[in-house]
Amino acid sequence: MELHLERLPRTVELLSWEGRAVLRYVDQRALPRDLRFAEAFSWEEVVEAIQVLAVRGAPAIGVAGAAALALWAFLHRGDDALDPSYAAGFHRMAAQVAGARPTAVNLMALVGRAEREFDRLVAAGAAADAIAAGLFDFAKALEAEDEAVNRAIGANGAALLQPGSRVLTHCNAGSLATVFYGTALGVIYAAAEQGKVQRIYADETRPVGQGSRLTVWELSRAGVPATLLCDNMAASAMAQGLIDCVIVGADRIARNGDTANKIGTYGVAVLAAHHGIPFYVAAPFSTIDGACADGAGIVIEQRDPSEVLPTPIDGVDVMNPAFDVTPAALIDAIITERGAFTPDHLESQL
Amino acid sequence: MELHLERLPRTVELLSWEGRAVLRYVDQRALPRDLRFAEAFSWEEVVEAIQVLAVRGAPAIGVAGAAALALWAFLHRGDDALDPSYAAGFHRMAAQVAGARPTAVNLMALVGRAEREFDRLVAAGAAADAIAAGLFDFAKALEAEDEAVNRAIGANGAALLQPGSRVLTHCNAGSLATVFYGTALGVIYAAAEQGKVQRIYADETRPVGQGSRLTVWELSRAGVPATLLCDNMAASAMAQGLIDCVIVGADRIARNGDTANKIGTYGVAVLAAHHGIPFYVAAPFSTIDGACADGAGIVIEQRDPSEVLPTPIDGVDVMNPAFDVTPAALIDAIITERGAFTPDHLESQL
Repeated sequence: MELHLERLPRTVELLSWEGRAVLRYVDQRALPRDLRFAEAFSWEEVVEAIQVLAVRGAPAIGVAGAAALALWAFLHRGDDALDPSYAAGFHRMAAQVAGARPTAVNLMALVGRAEREFDRLVAAGAAADAIAAGLFDFAKALEAEDEAVNRAIGANGAALLQPGSRVLTHCNAGSLATVFYGTALGVIYAAAEQGKVQRIYADETRPVGQGSRLTVWELSRAGVPATLLCDNMAASAMAQGLIDCVIVGADRIARNGDTANKIGTYGVAVLAAHHGIPFYVAAPFSTIDGACADGAGIVIEQRDPSEVLPTPIDGVDVMNPAFDVTPAALIDAIITERGAFTPDHLESQL
Repeated sequence: MELHLERLPRTVELLSWEGRAVLRYVDQRALPRDLRFAEAFSWEEVVEAIQVLAVRGAPAIGVAGAAALALWAFLHRGDDALDPSYAAGFHRMAAQVAGARPTAVNLMALVGRAEREFDRLVAAGAAADAIAAGLFDFAKALEAEDEAVNRAIGANGAALLQPGSRVLTHCNAGSLATVFYGTALGVIYAAAEQGKVQRIYADETRPVGQGSRLTVWELSRAGVPATLLCDNMAASAMAQGLIDCVIVGADRIARNGDTANKIGTYGVAVLAAHHGIPFYVAAPFSTIDGACADGAGIVIEQRDPSEVLPTPIDGVDVMNPAFDVTPAALIDAIITERGAFTPDHLESQL
């Protein structure tokens, strides 16, 4: 296998272009048919892109959220930063960006970090145009941090894999879910560079199809052998002995290690435990929500029924939770940029 | 809840029409949009309808297979039944009908029964037109038997349910999978008549969507409250305490109780066991393959990759097994027309 990471696009990228600030992103709704880039010039356009899943993946929406704040600051670069309405308007906007989707902690975490940078600049007496420049640089630093963190996660996770590994993943915790490189797929890319990967099995991940539309596209482009399967086939693949381990991403991890991730992850974890297959979560440390004691405290986003059933049927209800919670007891290791930890060792690292 | 079983169509029905014999069937590919009936005048048309899943469901394809033999006999009613090529042609054709799909034992079992009826008629010296009439009557008797068996399964299964039951089902083992009434959904209909059913949760059942296209349509039409969920949401529904028991159908049951059913059934059984939720299989006794000691002997049909991934992606393979095998140890009871048995009591009933 020859790995071609250079063929993967940068998922979100804040650019300065003809005197304007713009967030360029891969519109993931067009994949796998088209690799289409789109631009957001305002924070509202970023929120819209996040809500319609044009930009998705916990780390990617976190960076996009911070970029949204920079776009606001750019459009308000002529304001009077000493006018109290300036900072008040900024934080009102930031709250709306942070609330664009409720489950992934990365969005609120990185928006919060950008808000603190804003407060620091305001307190230092910076003018609005300097604040705009400062938030632009801050968002660019978060982009670079994301890739560096993912590469560290990859290295730490690859150490857990045996040569010839056949790995099942659910949803897309790949380069497309981050700025670049990915978390769960970052582990795959790092392991592939070490010649340890035989094949990736990708659940299609209904109803949005992150596996069938994004993960297999990304793996194909990077040169990693992939097999697509329907979500309900994972148990059969495990029973046939095709799966050596499971690696997934995370949207929020509680202090005790309970992990919210894409709907279906919990079921895969139960199946892995039943078959004695190691189950790993790969995520940046920022996905751990120190304020959250356990999974019961995690808000689960409920999405529109039409994603599951496009044409309603009389008398038929639809369930459409976007996430579920995998109890820590089913997780063998949480792979972070600081190392891989069993869930019970997580809290001591905070 | 008011049950309206009279709103459910007969799924397959052999008719005599303007001097011709015809199998009228519900073309299930058009559901839930259209309730469309189609006609087969030849055995080849029946095989085609079975292979493209226009007619599906183990009991329904069994009856359709027997009807295909009657259609052959009708079109050969002017032949000389004493000519050895007549019986040889019949059995050659019957072998092709029996092999239209490999997993469901009902198809080969009911085709086999119709062949024995044919042999009996030939041995008795019947003329070809009398053989045609005899096989027509035999197929009609199988239709009646199917409904009677399903109603008995329903009564036996309803006795296992508690009032207020919320039942998860996978695929469609409903009236649409049989001539009429259904097996797993037959239990639901019988329990609903006793006021025991609160709500049915239906897995959508990728890739063909028997749950989202057929089961919720059928339940809606019959007046049973239904909730559609993606296959990967079943674990979350169980963890939330929404599911009191699971009832599924079967395509083949080995002597030890190992059960082949629609892909995904095995995973649901593992999840049910993990959550302490009873898991029931509802099927006619004819689904038990006495020649099959355990699940290892069951041939699993592999279907076309395009069902899972309509547009191929370079370097991406697809898994598409149509069935999986649930080990007997995960099954609390097999509900048949003769009663409900734990898997270890099944063999003594053969």
